[in-house]
Amino acid sequence: MNSFGKRLIMTTFGESHGKAIGCVLDGVPAGLDIDETFIQNELDRRRPGKSKFATARKELDEVQILSGVFEGRSTGTPIAMVIFNKDQKSRDYSNIKDIFRPGHADFTYWHKYGIRDYRGGGRSSARETAARVAAGAVAKLLLKEFGIEVEAGVCEVAGIEAKEFDFDYAKTSEIFALDPYVETLQKEAILKAKEAHDSVGGAVLVRATNLPVGLGEPIYYKLDAVLAEALMSINAAKAVDIGLGREASRLYGSQNNDQITKEGFISNNAGGILGGISNGEDVIAKVWFKPTPSIFQKQRSIDVNGNEVEVELKGRHDPFVAARGSVVAEAMMALVIADMLLLNATSQLSHLKKVYL
Amino acid sequence: MNSFGKRLIMTTFGESHGKAIGCVLDGVPAGLDIDETFIQNELDRRRPGKSKFATARKELDEVQILSGVFEGRSTGTPIAMVIFNKDQKSRDYSNIKDIFRPGHADFTYWHKYGIRDYRGGGRSSARETAARVAAGAVAKLLLKEFGIEVEAGVCEVAGIEAKEFDFDYAKTSEIFALDPYVETLQKEAILKAKEAHDSVGGAVLVRATNLPVGLGEPIYYKLDAVLAEALMSINAAKAVDIGLGREASRLYGSQNNDQITKEGFISNNAGGILGGISNGEDVIAKVWFKPTPSIFQKQRSIDVNGNEVEVELKGRHDPFVAARGSVVAEAMMALVIADMLLLNATSQLSHLKKVYL
Amino acid sequence: MNSFGKRLIMTTFGESHGKAIGCVLDGVPAGLDIDETFIQNELDRRRPGKSKFATARKELDEVQILSGVFEGRSTGTPIAMVIFNKDQKSRDYSNIKDIFRPGHADFTYWHKYGIRDYRGGGRSSARETAARVAAGAVAKLLLKEFGIEVEAGVCEVAGIEAKEFDFDYAKTSEIFALDPYVETLQKEAILKAKEAHDSVGGAVLVRATNLPVGLGEPIYYKLDAVLAEALMSINAAKAVDIGLGREASRLYGSQNNDQITKEGFISNNAGGILGGISNGEDVIAKVWFKPTPSIFQKQRSIDVNGNEVEVELKGRHDPFVAARGSVVAEAMMALVIADMLLLNATSQLSHLKKVYL
Amino acid sequence: MNSFGKRLIMTTFGESHGKAIGCVLDGVPAGLDIDETFIQNELDRRRPGKSKFATARKELDEVQILSGVFEGRSTGTPIAMVIFNKDQKSRDYSNIKDIFRPGHADFTYWHKYGIRDYRGGGRSSARETAARVAAGAVAKLLLKEFGIEVEAGVCEVAGIEAKEFDFDYAKTSEIFALDPYVETLQKEAILKAKEAHDSVGGAVLVRATNLPVGLGEPIYYKLDAVLAEALMSINAAKAVDIGLGREASRLYGSQNNDQITKEGFISNNAGGILGGISNGEDVIAKVWFKPTPSIFQKQRSIDVNGNEVEVELKGRHDPFVAARGSVVAEAMMALVIADMLLLNATSQLSHLKKVYL
Repeated sequence: MNSFGKRLIMTTFGESHGKAIGCVLDGVPAGLDIDETFIQNELDRRRPGKSKFATARKELDEVQILSGVFEGRSTGTPIAMVIFNKDQKSRDYSNIKDIFRPGHADFTYWHKYGIRDYRGGGRSSARETAARVAAGAVAKLLLKEFGIEVEAGVCEVAGIEAKEFDFDYAKTSEIFALDPYVETLQKEAILKAKEAHDSVGGAVLVRATNLPVGLGEPIYYKLDAVLAEALMSINAAKAVDIGLGREASRLYGSQNNDQITKEGFISNNAGGILGGISNGEDVIAKVWFKPTPSIFQKQRSIDVNGNEVEVELKGRHDPFVAARGSVVAEAMMALVIADMLLLNATSQLSHLKKVYL
Repeated sequence: MNSFGKRLIMTTFGESHGKAIGCVLDGVPAGLDIDETFIQNELDRRRPGKSKFATARKELDEVQILSGVFEGRSTGTPIAMVIFNKDQKSRDYSNIKDIFRPGHADFTYWHKYGIRDYRGGGRSSARETAARVAAGAVAKLLLKEFGIEVEAGVCEVAGIEAKEFDFDYAKTSEIFALDPYVETLQKEAILKAKEAHDSVGGAVLVRATNLPVGLGEPIYYKLDAVLAEALMSINAAKAVDIGLGREASRLYGSQNNDQITKEGFISNNAGGILGGISNGEDVIAKVWFKPTPSIFQKQRSIDVNGNEVEVELKGRHDPFVAARGSVVAEAMMALVIADMLLLNATSQLSHLKKVYL
Repeated sequence: MNSFGKRLIMTTFGESHGKAIGCVLDGVPAGLDIDETFIQNELDRRRPGKSKFATARKELDEVQILSGVFEGRSTGTPIAMVIFNKDQKSRDYSNIKDIFRPGHADFTYWHKYGIRDYRGGGRSSARETAARVAAGAVAKLLLKEFGIEVEAGVCEVAGIEAKEFDFDYAKTSEIFALDPYVETLQKEAILKAKEAHDSVGGAVLVRATNLPVGLGEPIYYKLDAVLAEALMSINAAKAVDIGLGREASRLYGSQNNDQITKEGFISNNAGGILGGISNGEDVIAKVWFKPTPSIFQKQRSIDVNGNEVEVELKGRHDPFVAARGSVVAEAMMALVIADMLLLNATSQLSHLKKVYL
Repeated sequence: MNSFGKRLIMTTFGESHGKAIGCVLDGVPAGLDIDETFIQNELDRRRPGKSKFATARKELDEVQILSGVFEGRSTGTPIAMVIFNKDQKSRDYSNIKDIFRPGHADFTYWHKYGIRDYRGGGRSSARETAARVAAGAVAKLLLKEFGIEVEAGVCEVAGIEAKEFDFDYAKTSEIFALDPYVETLQKEAILKAKEAHDSVGGAVLVRATNLPVGLGEPIYYKLDAVLAEALMSINAAKAVDIGLGREASRLYGSQNNDQITKEGFISNNAGGILGGISNGEDVIAKVWFKPTPSIFQKQRSIDVNGNEVEVELKGRHDPFVAARGSVVAEAMMALVIADMLLLNATSQLSHLKKVYL
């Protein structure tokens, strides 16, 4: 259950403080230029330890491609990528060995598996998302061949909403903020929480541009449904909107419907998806992250024996996870769209005839 | 791509105005009492034509079980269920044969497949959800064996929010309203929109109670992620929250974390899921529906040849889809949880030993 | 676990003496002409009750298409087909209700599920293969668009081997014999066994012609491996050969290797598959069927309570199942190749560019 | 398409002369003791370079576990294992860079993908099977907990058949011969072929003992069908028999049926499988390997430009692949049975109740 996708299938493995994390990406068409620098750059964007807004854990996150690439191009065989863990201060975690940190997966992993790798959250750590970013980078390379681009940025921090959405600006922002005008306020909110040994939540806007019409496989592999799954699978995600999302439910049909002219859709309230299929407009989704559960205040909890304890965490944690989450959201959307691109290639007999006849 | 689930796999088929719709449910453990009356009752709850708040289309939605049940019990083989379409006024749709209705899947199906069954939306019609309700009813029967119950109701109509959540009341309400105190206002909003030939949106709260700890398969079959997919796959759904959802992103970590005592979790902001795995609390999700796209006002659109047209729909449509959507949301959550129950049965070696040794 | 295929996915349902059997075929590209007469003809070829060489059970096997076809063409949505059971003499089976027939699945179904639909073997009956033939017929229609043809015939009965392989002749033979010169002997062997209340086994040769190079997905969806699975899943199948099969293992490498010239491969010992991928030559497989387990002699067995019993079957059974098995083998090979055709459409970036750019 | 299994899912990656080969094994229940020495020993059994009967390529095949194991036990998360390639004499292959070796996958990979990693066969090399053996070793550890054992050995070399099947003896034989009395003849046949720069084929018998009744998921995940797929997916495999296999087709039903007494089945012609489900008897399968295609004689072929060439291979190759193939066959059968064990855990409601209630 550690695989994602139907035709472009990512399988990830690895624990926060194990030997390595990594992924196997199966289904990449042969003949794609695999730009390793680009992949590494994507990982560097997600990498912790770069600013005071994120965890101080310093991982170089150097990715190695083990297979599937020959002379710079994909061969059609699975692309395995591995990142060996370096900065694994496992000692930091010895004190929480038998304790369930509130808001964390400790409690559920323990009960589900009867055992847990407690070091840094083990498999449940957001560190796993580095593997997704590596796979997502390959998906982006594939999408680029078709002119499709996926971008993301932070649109809300602690309730402070972006009014403008400048995806280029986000690329340069330490917190991937989409709106330069509220970025300062947003940063202050993060630092204020950090100083109070607390954390804040936020939201990320993800956008794909230049999609062909037709991506998405009704009824149970709809583009919007799979995007929802993909984004909700990111650590700390608690809500997903497609297009106007929740806001659409407060409009009248006559307001919300995207009417059509010769030039295309007049509006894009739908977020580029109708009936689970892309309509050619920008695909827009929003994912909402809870505040980081790792805070440095005393909290009530229990240990594995059911005894009540007071937890006070040590270690290094992001006071705001949505920033790095935006890089992961991009990766997930890229993977979803690339998968849908492959799936849709056989939707019509005429497509197949172009390939074979 | 018309299948859902990994161990309990529902495959649906059928078009709104074709011969029949139906489903095949594979993976139901043998020995389950299959109460056909219960299944039919579930379908009756979703069935249109019962009140002025829903479409006047009258379908008896009589379900026939074709296989997988012998002498009242499941045999472990696939359970096929079929509902023959009766009230198919296909003529109603001849006028939109070549036209793309705004807000509908007409445009995307046409482009994706190069052909569409235009009668009543064909496969993209919400009629398909009757098949889900039939399958969901079987999932509910399975869950009942373990004391797990899934319930849903409407918590918001046209921005009018429920303050109380009375799931028993919802069962008796024509619009499945959770809050009797706002129900009248909510109904008025629907009727007002209907009279204006318009439609409204809303939201549904779904809840599962009495789950064991451990359901959900990280990393890519997380309970919350799959719920998000399941709920977003319902027609007209545009957003999904788990637990506090979006609201959680506006709290501090110290507020949002569910602390733990000997008696259990102090709060349930997480909606019963940590790290993608059920924690034993109620699983809570919310799904937001856009206003019905089928409205009876003039709208701009184009036809299949790219000519601009004015669309004015006829036919019978719900002015508010979330009510019947709540029955579907229940079915989808039941299917997800039942699937997770089966999957989790092999999470520990000790579980397997209970089965085999 | 009642589904087969990855992109062209057949799900079957139904029991021998239940209400109906049928299938849902998902993934058929839109725009394919669906010739219902052809589908019915395929079913008629498999249909029992036509000669003294097969069971006297008379089923009309009238197939109804419930979905996925509009105005004679596939729409891209799942094609559901159903065959209602007519001639269900359930009384024939009351005497074996609690008994395990030797060579049958009675024993294993009972133990696996704790319950069994004993009427005519229930789900384990070869009657299920009618659903495969319906789905296979659609696969054949798809393959025909690419000039690919799948044919089969009986090449051995009770050890009497065909020396010639005339697939056209097989179409006219009551036992689908490939070799007219040994057909009489083969028929005599069947009738002799039948008279002795016994049964015989045999083998079927299946061939696909005119495949493109490239079908088959290494490493775990190889064309030969999936063919082996497909053919071995047919009732009573006990062995599968690809190309020379077992005989190849008794040659030297220098004899067995298919050398290549400008004109193509000099020989086809490989059966058209190298490394799990089609090489453009005819794909050849052989499937070996055990003698029908249903014989009308006294046999030792036990009942569900563990008591020893003497079984003496009544009812109607084929004395030789491979004949009708050859129709099923064709269907299975057609399904496999069609699935591979769809999968291979995304093997190269250049293929995708043909579809999208 | 590089994954195998439904609940115990092995994904392999890597090329013969790339950086590494490896696998990710997902679905291993938590709490299993992972004996790394045992896994390494299994790899050592398959490892080349140990005798004159196998290729001289010397790989240490040192396996590293990267994830999924904590303090010696499985945690329920994916177990990634990697083997870095050491002895990669890529130069050996430069002369066949543009040439299709007869009997190899060069031709088909080239055409399927438009590119190939020609070094040592790339992905199509039998080197990939080392990853299977690693995964299979974990499956064996799981099966051992339930008393199930899987063993294999060579039963035929160049037409020389074993008459006795001594699985313990096979463990000590350089060619994994099952029958000590014909082993010398079999070895001579291999060496004689080797001296003639040729190769021979053979067959392997695989056996699983002590299975519970009930493993196998009809209709399309039958134990025998999936075994056939698993064994046929091994490099150079061309035929698979279950139980008596082909021989059964030459018996009468009255001879072939395994009659039953209180003490169990009187015979085991079926190879332990009825209706696709294990019946508690030994599961028996045979897999037939073609002679190694890599021979050191002149052969006719073409190059990537279609020019006719004479190929004369250099490099190091097994003159007889079935010996090492027997280790792989064991691994594949272990994986299949372990997967079926997990799947069957939910076949009955009563099983689930044992886990949850």
